[in-house]
Amino acid sequence: MPNSNHSQDTKDRYFMMLAIEQAKRGLYTTRPNPAVGCVLVKADEVVGQGFHPKAGQPHAEVFALKDAGNRAVGATAYVTLEPCSHTGRTPPCARALIESGVKRVVIAGLDPNPQVAGRGVKLLEEAGIPVTVGVLTAHAEALNKGFLKAMRSQMPYVRLKIATSLDGRTAMASGESKWITGTAAREDVQKLRAQSGAIITGSETVIVDNPQLNIRSSQLGVAPEEVPPPKIVILDRRGRLKHDLQSDYQLCRRSDTLYWREENLIELLKSLVRDYQCYDVLVEAGASVAGSFLQQQLVDELIVYQAPCLLGMQARPMVAINPLSLAQQLRFDVHCHEQLGADLKLTLYPL
Amino acid sequence: MPNSNHSQDTKDRYFMMLAIEQAKRGLYTTRPNPAVGCVLVKADEVVGQGFHPKAGQPHAEVFALKDAGNRAVGATAYVTLEPCSHTGRTPPCARALIESGVKRVVIAGLDPNPQVAGRGVKLLEEAGIPVTVGVLTAHAEALNKGFLKAMRSQMPYVRLKIATSLDGRTAMASGESKWITGTAAREDVQKLRAQSGAIITGSETVIVDNPQLNIRSSQLGVAPEEVPPPKIVILDRRGRLKHDLQSDYQLCRRSDTLYWREENLIELLKSLVRDYQCYDVLVEAGASVAGSFLQQQLVDELIVYQAPCLLGMQARPMVAINPLSLAQQLRFDVHCHEQLGADLKLTLYPL
Repeated sequence: MPNSNHSQDTKDRYFMMLAIEQAKRGLYTTRPNPAVGCVLVKADEVVGQGFHPKAGQPHAEVFALKDAGNRAVGATAYVTLEPCSHTGRTPPCARALIESGVKRVVIAGLDPNPQVAGRGVKLLEEAGIPVTVGVLTAHAEALNKGFLKAMRSQMPYVRLKIATSLDGRTAMASGESKWITGTAAREDVQKLRAQSGAIITGSETVIVDNPQLNIRSSQLGVAPEEVPPPKIVILDRRGRLKHDLQSDYQLCRRSDTLYWREENLIELLKSLVRDYQCYDVLVEAGASVAGSFLQQQLVDELIVYQAPCLLGMQARPMVAINPLSLAQQLRFDVHCHEQLGADLKLTLYPL
Repeated sequence: MPNSNHSQDTKDRYFMMLAIEQAKRGLYTTRPNPAVGCVLVKADEVVGQGFHPKAGQPHAEVFALKDAGNRAVGATAYVTLEPCSHTGRTPPCARALIESGVKRVVIAGLDPNPQVAGRGVKLLEEAGIPVTVGVLTAHAEALNKGFLKAMRSQMPYVRLKIATSLDGRTAMASGESKWITGTAAREDVQKLRAQSGAIITGSETVIVDNPQLNIRSSQLGVAPEEVPPPKIVILDRRGRLKHDLQSDYQLCRRSDTLYWREENLIELLKSLVRDYQCYDVLVEAGASVAGSFLQQQLVDELIVYQAPCLLGMQARPMVAINPLSLAQQLRFDVHCHEQLGADLKLTLYPL
């Protein structure tokens, strides 16, 4: 907790970090809404806090104001995303802040929607409340990569996840692959799924592995049934699969599975944003699908779970691409490397 | 620097760490001798320090005693390896310590040679000097893995180094491989070479890459010409290469290159210890040689320089092994993962 010797900037960063911690509590449950947190501070003390838990429920500011009660009068509000200015399922939060009597508002980042951005700030300023924008913006935006990208470009944020050996193999030649990585890595995949509006897989993966792609982890901080189930998309150009309650394939028994029979992956991604409000997309498939997404530069983030083992030359390759020379290689920036149990997790951004 | 409130154990660890820092100064130059450091301490103050710089030159204790002069009387000596008790190229160090008037000796680890171990300690104790053995043993022994393993088992410590892509490829199908990893990773390889008594490569690598395998780095802390050049070994069962001053292959122009024409790698490794005093061996070769060493469980440490790039399915595999099922995979323990420039360095121990 900062003391009176700390500068206002330091205090602002400190309390915004608390607001971000609040926002994280909704990380797996707010979809398609963004995760947002709010903290109210008076005389360097937190007097109220809240987060947006779920679409249809009140926004973070409303929970924080309710938590503070009368103590909101004269407080500073820290919000991780610009307060809304329109009446949706809930009344505008900028209005609620004004009416509560807060004396200052600090915002991590503006609403990315060009038709909304700045209006919340304007409403507050017109009411005579000073507003500071841009405190810990990158930290706050990291929670809502999909929402922000979709609002800005109508394309989702695409994560490609691959579990592989040290020598870049995902399965034995026989197809045997259970399990290359350990439980900690597989638990982590559950977090990726729980963050995703849609999971894309391939018909080959469905036929060979018959995955459930469900969320069953008890380590998310919320019950798995609280997480909105990601939309399942099966890439199936050859029409090998279809909805059938009696299907051998678990994903094909679900009536809401989307079968994408076209070649155009960009159109699929646009459709996921436009038609299904899926802003974070996880690709969990085999080498061919991974190769297609990478070659077409549709991947925003590559997550490699690397088991410290060697599977050999006959084992299945990680990504079906065929650059002809070193100049055509696909290169990445290592954003993070960490150990998960016996395995490594690498987070990479395509260059 | 510890103060009088610290326990004697804490002080011992602190000053032994300083002795280890001294030992490190000889890391690249003492071969075939071990790297050893010595610090003399009186009233919690360092009064002398030294390290063994090079075979044929005095041992660490002698340099430290010379540095301390009269102040050695009544001091405690911290030595990273048991002082020698025999007259070799230099008089025994245990004797020198006794004559200097030190009042206590602290040793990280005993001399591993079963015919020597404990004799230095005995000599000191017979002279009435109390000896403590076992302070930061693992830290000290990490500097001399090859020496220690060779003394204990007549086999060298074998490091296998592989530079690879994320998808486990070492070169394009064409053989193009310059360079997959960046300069920081390649500089680090220079340190591996400078620690090695011998470098083993394969005839195929010589013919395809024509490497020099020399030490040219300016970042070792010593001039490259101070480093005893590693013995070069070419595995050449088919007799494709031989010494020839006019050879196209740089390594074949060297008269001291060893051509190993037999299949038996264990015999080679034993011979390197027995006949050449090569205790640290670095394997820098292609997928076949790497596979042979790994399959035969001759690798003590696998060092992977992993470039964050994908080279594709046609590119050359990392290790030529062919386990038939997951149960036959080769597994490792991740000892360390670190970023070197844009690349990752993984240090792994076979399980």
